Amino acid sequence: MTALPAILNRLDADLEASLERLFALLRIQSVSTDAAYAPEVRRAAAHLVADLKSLGFEASARETAGHPCVVGHRRRAGKPHVLFYGHYDVQPVDPLNLWTHPPFEPSVQEIEPGRKAIVARGACDDKGQVMTFLEACRATIAETGDLPISLSVMIEGEEENGSINLPAFLEANAEEFKADICLVCDTGMWDRDTPQITSSLRGLLYEEVIVKAADRDLHSGHFGGAAQNPIHILSRIVANLHDAEGRITIPHFYEGVHETGDNRRAQWAALDLTEEDYLGTVGLRYAAGEKGRMVIEKVVARPTCDCNGIWGGYTGEGTKTVIAGEARAKISFRLVGDQDPAAIQKNFRAEVARQIPADCSVEFIGYKGSRAVQVREDSPELRKAVTALNAEWGNETVVMGHGGSIPITGDFKRVLGLDALLIGFGLDDDRIHSPNEKYDLRSFHKGQRSWARIIEALGK
Amino acid sequence: MTALPAILNRLDADLEASLERLFALLRIQSVSTDAAYAPEVRRAAAHLVADLKSLGFEASARETAGHPCVVGHRRRAGKPHVLFYGHYDVQPVDPLNLWTHPPFEPSVQEIEPGRKAIVARGACDDKGQVMTFLEACRATIAETGDLPISLSVMIEGEEENGSINLPAFLEANAEEFKADICLVCDTGMWDRDTPQITSSLRGLLYEEVIVKAADRDLHSGHFGGAAQNPIHILSRIVANLHDAEGRITIPHFYEGVHETGDNRRAQWAALDLTEEDYLGTVGLRYAAGEKGRMVIEKVVARPTCDCNGIWGGYTGEGTKTVIAGEARAKISFRLVGDQDPAAIQKNFRAEVARQIPADCSVEFIGYKGSRAVQVREDSPELRKAVTALNAEWGNETVVMGHGGSIPITGDFKRVLGLDALLIGFGLDDDRIHSPNEKYDLRSFHKGQRSWARIIEALGK
Repeated sequence: MTALPAILNRLDADLEASLERLFALLRIQSVSTDAAYAPEVRRAAAHLVADLKSLGFEASARETAGHPCVVGHRRRAGKPHVLFYGHYDVQPVDPLNLWTHPPFEPSVQEIEPGRKAIVARGACDDKGQVMTFLEACRATIAETGDLPISLSVMIEGEEENGSINLPAFLEANAEEFKADICLVCDTGMWDRDTPQITSSLRGLLYEEVIVKAADRDLHSGHFGGAAQNPIHILSRIVANLHDAEGRITIPHFYEGVHETGDNRRAQWAALDLTEEDYLGTVGLRYAAGEKGRMVIEKVVARPTCDCNGIWGGYTGEGTKTVIAGEARAKISFRLVGDQDPAAIQKNFRAEVARQIPADCSVEFIGYKGSRAVQVREDSPELRKAVTALNAEWGNETVVMGHGGSIPITGDFKRVLGLDALLIGFGLDDDRIHSPNEKYDLRSFHKGQRSWARIIEALGK
Repeated sequence: MTALPAILNRLDADLEASLERLFALLRIQSVSTDAAYAPEVRRAAAHLVADLKSLGFEASARETAGHPCVVGHRRRAGKPHVLFYGHYDVQPVDPLNLWTHPPFEPSVQEIEPGRKAIVARGACDDKGQVMTFLEACRATIAETGDLPISLSVMIEGEEENGSINLPAFLEANAEEFKADICLVCDTGMWDRDTPQITSSLRGLLYEEVIVKAADRDLHSGHFGGAAQNPIHILSRIVANLHDAEGRITIPHFYEGVHETGDNRRAQWAALDLTEEDYLGTVGLRYAAGEKGRMVIEKVVARPTCDCNGIWGGYTGEGTKTVIAGEARAKISFRLVGDQDPAAIQKNFRAEVARQIPADCSVEFIGYKGSRAVQVREDSPELRKAVTALNAEWGNETVVMGHGGSIPITGDFKRVLGLDALLIGFGLDDDRIHSPNEKYDLRSFHKGQRSWARIIEALGK
């Protein structure tokens, strides 16, 4: 006889109390990117350590070169070992004047008839999501005296700052975190009624290119027509990144990119997602990029390249007839499959250098590169999670790649050899990173119930 | 018997006194672009009006929508009518800490052994240059009781602010300023021993291009590969401005461009100016732009196009994976011959619009356009000025176009039908617009003597 119905009943009955526990965490101003909030960040870590201890975890706030990482273990020999990952730090709240409620005074608001949401910074990203998991653990332990899995929890304090110290922490403690599967709760639903497991994330390569010509800014009256203009050179480089078919022109770029299988393509086609469906919310109707591919394929399964910023010369009001001494661009690549960021960086730089004329020079600033992450679709954990989510939501779970990058999942794979299941209950309108961040009360409640089901399923 | 030797002797004898008169003008802080200096600007105008009156001019400070324009007439019926143009306003002095002497406390410094210079803001640009002309008038009047020409003088107070009110002033008073020739003293020598007449100026068309795509900045993880990136589109537009031969690709762009004659080309070739000679001072060695043309031809006789500024997306430190909602560029054209800025603006905009894909839009901000200005090389005034300058300097005057634009000369042509002779005694190292502006004492002295010769020659 399974304890699941009793656990779910307990979660239903306990919703108000669980909300209070979330609110206590939301009131802590754990903004990780602003040093002024460092004491609050530590306070949030201590709060979580205490909560984990109250659930029987061996828990502590572990020092890193930056903010501490909360770690808890509740091991059970002979049970599948699960590593849960989330983060307790939050984005800054600027611009404060756009918040309708103070960002660190959480409340439940009726955002439309019959739809309630928790409004606060971190309500969704990621405190609310983290607490769905901990509440599922709490109810399971309360009802059965234990968890059916061996569980390690890692809740970091620098995700909004690029997880800059977590890879080193993982490497230094690799033995401690070896597990069978990693659960990450920092993603969203397919729609309000359809759960989603994010089965892949794109990798990332981010480069800054600096083209230099004359050793100063020049007057175009004296030098126009004679001096190299680095903006022209950089524009050509950016223009040449794609060919007329929308394909990226860096030599060997597509090595390691695997074509999506027919089954997956059929699933995507069945979604009937038009270009306008995908782009309409941002004022666009026609997909750019590679020709002859579905929009969903483009954003989750194909590598892309975007110039994220460009600047040079005079950018103020009015006119100045200057020929700039240098021009800069930030260019990033989203990677898929087995694309190797190191090889692409090398080929990209060589291809750019090839386009630099005599008299000019180019410099590069390399930022972090990460490989794409993919969950094996035949993984038993994935199938168990799908079944659990289907039962909770009454709709077939969408298993779908995501076009973004969560570099830390690449580190779990690289350092620990761990596949990650990305399951979360955020919605597209949650305004994470923006004023008036919210988390639907239904996401918080059914998220807890979903995790209770998944934990039970993984223990079997 | 000519009075010229006596006039020149008088200028030699009077140099100290003429310096004191220049210093009095240099001490007035007539910075036109900063409203705080408006009283000083008016004081400079009044100072010049008084000086012109002392020379027998009908003179006044004429109101405009901005700073006053100093106007003086000393008419002689039956004599060639000359309009002299200069400006009494100066550039701001920032950064003040880089000046070795206070900018409004003029002095004569020995800048290298045997070489003295007047150091002050406006020493060259344009107070020193204006006073070379007025001192020549003063000596001529003192020695002969009159000038051999009918003379109108226009010394404006907004040249450093783009002469924004002068075209309207000219249009409102066109009859008053009709003359046979215009003399402009705001340019430089070929080198320290070789005088120069600037025989042409390039015209200018200046446009700002704004490419818009999504109605907000997008996350490249969600939209990379699907959404149009306006930086890519703008980069293609900038890259497509020139073909592989360095020619500008706007349809009909070269209509009205005249090939330089063989004589002029032979003169240029005789200068033996290498690309490195021209570009070496700014750290370059190889001329860009149109293939198969001399560097001097490129900068004075050929139309050019430069992107003077470009910006869009994230331009701060580090990384942000954004796809910008819009991107902007400032693009200017230097025009020659009979190129029509209005037609080129129309064709440029159409060509840009043609490259905007569905879902994107483009807007333009048009700034002032001006036609190129050219002095007829067979003009008798030009030949008289060349002979006068040759006699003063003992070297053959270089008659050479300049790649820059002085839009007001286009207005003299458009409103008054007047050709301008641009003659000045500035040197490349005068640091106009920069700290420690100077004017060689030799420029000030021989400039006066040059004008005395030119005035005499034009009166014949």
